[in-house]
Amino acid sequence: MTPVVGRKATGLVAATFTPLTPEGEINLSEIRPYIDYLLEQQGVKSIFVNGTTGEGMSLTVEERKLLAVEWCHQGKNKLEQVIVHVGCMSLKDSQELARHAAEIGADGISVISPSFFKPATADALRMFLQEVAAAAPAMPFYYYHIPAVTGVNLRSRDVLEGIANQIPSFQGLKFSGSDLMDFGQCVSYSPSHWSLLYGIDEQLLGALAMGANGAVGSTYNYLGSSVNRLMSAFDKGDLPKARTIQVHLLFRFDLSVNKQLMSAVSGLALGPPRLPLLPCPHPKALSIAQRLQQILGDQ
Amino acid sequence: MTPVVGRKATGLVAATFTPLTPEGEINLSEIRPYIDYLLEQQGVKSIFVNGTTGEGMSLTVEERKLLAVEWCHQGKNKLEQVIVHVGCMSLKDSQELARHAAEIGADGISVISPSFFKPATADALRMFLQEVAAAAPAMPFYYYHIPAVTGVNLRSRDVLEGIANQIPSFQGLKFSGSDLMDFGQCVSYSPSHWSLLYGIDEQLLGALAMGANGAVGSTYNYLGSSVNRLMSAFDKGDLPKARTIQVHLLFRFDLSVNKQLMSAVSGLALGPPRLPLLPCPHPKALSIAQRLQQILGDQ
Amino acid sequence: MTPVVGRKATGLVAATFTPLTPEGEINLSEIRPYIDYLLEQQGVKSIFVNGTTGEGMSLTVEERKLLAVEWCHQGKNKLEQVIVHVGCMSLKDSQELARHAAEIGADGISVISPSFFKPATADALRMFLQEVAAAAPAMPFYYYHIPAVTGVNLRSRDVLEGIANQIPSFQGLKFSGSDLMDFGQCVSYSPSHWSLLYGIDEQLLGALAMGANGAVGSTYNYLGSSVNRLMSAFDKGDLPKARTIQVHLLFRFDLSVNKQLMSAVSGLALGPPRLPLLPCPHPKALSIAQRLQQILGDQ
Amino acid sequence: MTPVVGRKATGLVAATFTPLTPEGEINLSEIRPYIDYLLEQQGVKSIFVNGTTGEGMSLTVEERKLLAVEWCHQGKNKLEQVIVHVGCMSLKDSQELARHAAEIGADGISVISPSFFKPATADALRMFLQEVAAAAPAMPFYYYHIPAVTGVNLRSRDVLEGIANQIPSFQGLKFSGSDLMDFGQCVSYSPSHWSLLYGIDEQLLGALAMGANGAVGSTYNYLGSSVNRLMSAFDKGDLPKARTIQVHLLFRFDLSVNKQLMSAVSGLALGPPRLPLLPCPHPKALSIAQRLQQILGDQ
Repeated sequence: MTPVVGRKATGLVAATFTPLTPEGEINLSEIRPYIDYLLEQQGVKSIFVNGTTGEGMSLTVEERKLLAVEWCHQGKNKLEQVIVHVGCMSLKDSQELARHAAEIGADGISVISPSFFKPATADALRMFLQEVAAAAPAMPFYYYHIPAVTGVNLRSRDVLEGIANQIPSFQGLKFSGSDLMDFGQCVSYSPSHWSLLYGIDEQLLGALAMGANGAVGSTYNYLGSSVNRLMSAFDKGDLPKARTIQVHLLFRFDLSVNKQLMSAVSGLALGPPRLPLLPCPHPKALSIAQRLQQILGDQ
Repeated sequence: MTPVVGRKATGLVAATFTPLTPEGEINLSEIRPYIDYLLEQQGVKSIFVNGTTGEGMSLTVEERKLLAVEWCHQGKNKLEQVIVHVGCMSLKDSQELARHAAEIGADGISVISPSFFKPATADALRMFLQEVAAAAPAMPFYYYHIPAVTGVNLRSRDVLEGIANQIPSFQGLKFSGSDLMDFGQCVSYSPSHWSLLYGIDEQLLGALAMGANGAVGSTYNYLGSSVNRLMSAFDKGDLPKARTIQVHLLFRFDLSVNKQLMSAVSGLALGPPRLPLLPCPHPKALSIAQRLQQILGDQ
Repeated sequence: MTPVVGRKATGLVAATFTPLTPEGEINLSEIRPYIDYLLEQQGVKSIFVNGTTGEGMSLTVEERKLLAVEWCHQGKNKLEQVIVHVGCMSLKDSQELARHAAEIGADGISVISPSFFKPATADALRMFLQEVAAAAPAMPFYYYHIPAVTGVNLRSRDVLEGIANQIPSFQGLKFSGSDLMDFGQCVSYSPSHWSLLYGIDEQLLGALAMGANGAVGSTYNYLGSSVNRLMSAFDKGDLPKARTIQVHLLFRFDLSVNKQLMSAVSGLALGPPRLPLLPCPHPKALSIAQRLQQILGDQ
Repeated sequence: MTPVVGRKATGLVAATFTPLTPEGEINLSEIRPYIDYLLEQQGVKSIFVNGTTGEGMSLTVEERKLLAVEWCHQGKNKLEQVIVHVGCMSLKDSQELARHAAEIGADGISVISPSFFKPATADALRMFLQEVAAAAPAMPFYYYHIPAVTGVNLRSRDVLEGIANQIPSFQGLKFSGSDLMDFGQCVSYSPSHWSLLYGIDEQLLGALAMGANGAVGSTYNYLGSSVNRLMSAFDKGDLPKARTIQVHLLFRFDLSVNKQLMSAVSGLALGPPRLPLLPCPHPKALSIAQRLQQILGDQ
């Protein structure tokens, strides 16, 4: 088998929210305007769907397929990359979603560690990832590391060990952890065609300094334009400017707030989150949105 | 709405392993001899299927249905209670499994907290449970509390608050936590028709003292006979004898070991666990089984 | 060396609060009435001083000596046992306090694991305990296990392994953890002259069932009389009565509240806790005290 | 009160190990050559004594005084800054050490959160820090944040809120956490005369990007020369060079290994750590030292 030559994901990737109706059903009609908003208002050209931000784990396999189809269809010839998260608690479900992502022409797939039953070792996790990847061997494959959510505290660097032999389509990782030593070791281990996408938006600048070549996050839905300027300043070596922008963007919301904040900022009707998440009270979302506009206006 | 009058689960309930073929597919043919083994060799008359021991979260919705059907079918007129665990990360999947369990004539359903997205409050969790229960309103409903696995550290007592109003079919809980204060408060709060099933096998005696009226666990697959004697001694007020038995049974294995140990002890072909769990090396399982036989023989 | 033959601690042991003046200085004059209160109002005849309840770690070595002297002096011919906690972050400080406890005629010493630097293994912890014990070889020695506070998650059973060889004066443990499997294994391993004192007041009954022969706790300062009835019912095999009492006593307060509650209930002037603990607002303490009186009155 | 105008700590600060004799007593005679080694071989001109690396919590108050005196005395006219860590579990001990540091002419004091009793809020912690600072009001004061060791997860930014009013001598913080959002918010909040010293050596580059103006760490004892080049490259805007150096230095040892590694690299006789830490086996330390020399030689 020869390695897949996918387009390498770089730059800013928005982890998309999943639009729901007020009744909590998936709302496919909001996806087209969502993509336009990202492109036109935020300058964001790549997306990561059905991930943590997209409440992927709260959706059924069938819903995830319908959503993936729509994101790929509407993003065609508009977006640079549509990466579909296909991680599930069940290996079989993950494999089915991986096959499906390949069929519908996604640009890549990503898999999180199962977290109810936790892999005991990096080897066990790599074997799980391998079995998913094998179901869609031509899909560029990204490992998704997010220990604070999964409770799986295996070092990413250990997961990467020899992974190219087990997963010829391996193409990088979404690293959503604060341990920049582990991240730095991943950078050091990675061949140049891998993507090293950082996933904690509020410490992106630190990760860029350590060698990240892209970022995936929920805040890029509404802060993409600002963060594009941050990355551009960084690329030009203008660290003081990059830091000035980063320092304006130091806040963290839980997913419920984040989703309603995006509705408030963008005007899109993304709806409530699904249980067990509770919707953020509307006045709270509005007041945060106003504060945010102020921060962005101040820049 | 009037409360469901289900048969109350008491005594020993085996949390069953899911038989898999060596290739990792579900193996329905092993269920009939499994039930016979529990009844004849262990004196265990109730089971809890597709739960943590059964690797429920590693199975697809379709597999869980097939298994539930077979357990109910084979257990009919033999077992006292078949409780089907229908908890999933997705509310919709849980609802579908709840409806299915009602259709196939299960004796009760149980739901664990979703753990990828964690409910922020006891209210949020209760709302999630309520939505599942509403899909099968005639099914006796058990909340399944297991914080060490889910990472959801909400106190059970808080989850029970007012639950009978929201879930008329509520009939008890499977409490797999070591905080006996919380458990004791649940005991104190519970009406007499609820089942208070304790789920940490190694400290069962402590929980019985606090008021448990039953137990659900994986070790009862192969220790049921001994633990039945423990419970019987306890019921007769012979605490020294109960303690002597309990003290012989103080060991804890991870799920992979536990599953292969059951195969070794029972002669059933339960197969390997599914990824991300790795099979326990055969010699290790054998040596543990031998040690166990010795312990049981010593009693 | 022959093993120390100390009087074995059994029954109820109050973990005493440290009386402070309103300015936060130790208040030795309150110790005499405190002892009288325990004896006369609560029927508690043994105490554990300078422990967690006593804010031992917030005191200087000199203060701990002054307090130990006073408790021993005032308790002489009145109390059955005065156990002095001599654990410190520094081995040398612990040794000094152990020697001092021996000089002043304490009945035993107890040592917690150091928790800033955490022992990596049970062996390392046992070596630390051994070095303390060696400084006062004739003092009955109790290991104090409280993982939720120290963050040291070594199993007590592993700490006990071979400890009688390393610490000839070893005489038992104060087990303040909720893992009753570990506790049960300690019970099973212990020779009959060891004390197995349980330290989570709210699940005492469970621990008694598993084999505890005594209890050390802060609530026994004000609930000693009730818990003495619980233990007496348990000893007579009247488990329903024991459970009825236990179930009335299921509440947990943080140390600040607990200390002020004791002042409110007993009328003693125990003063505020020392920083970094903040005093509990007086009305809150009063309201809790009233609720407590009601609970006790209801029994 | 006017704010203290201390010299601001910047650049590289070595967190010194405490030299012990083979018998475990403090070994003051090794301090002079230690300082010379730091200056001559590593180009490190500032030190942080009796901190985590120095096993401060395992020392008695008296030992800490003797060590502080010697470090200050031997460093006089040689070192730029001697910061003495005076944090203890007991406020009174901390105050005594703070007064002592002032008397002996230290350049600053630093205080960690007490961790046995944990402050419940940032306010409680700030009050504790204030009481220590008030004992030595002319000493530049640094808050030392190290949540992974203390288990105190209060955000530093919250601790800083209004701190200049409560501690006029406040001059910065040693931030040993991986949450760069919290660190970035501290940077954003800090007046320019505060020092923002980062304390996780392996992710220093990320913290410099976020605005750190110095670093305190144990590895700077033997990697100071390399990290000085990293900082100098960073200051000149040569991020690729800085990253190349950082990426070579991604390893983490526990304190026992670290201490013996320093002995092996420097030739100083630092002795074993004190219990509850166990010495690292000599061959292991040697082999790590050799690997390290290789890494440094490769640069």
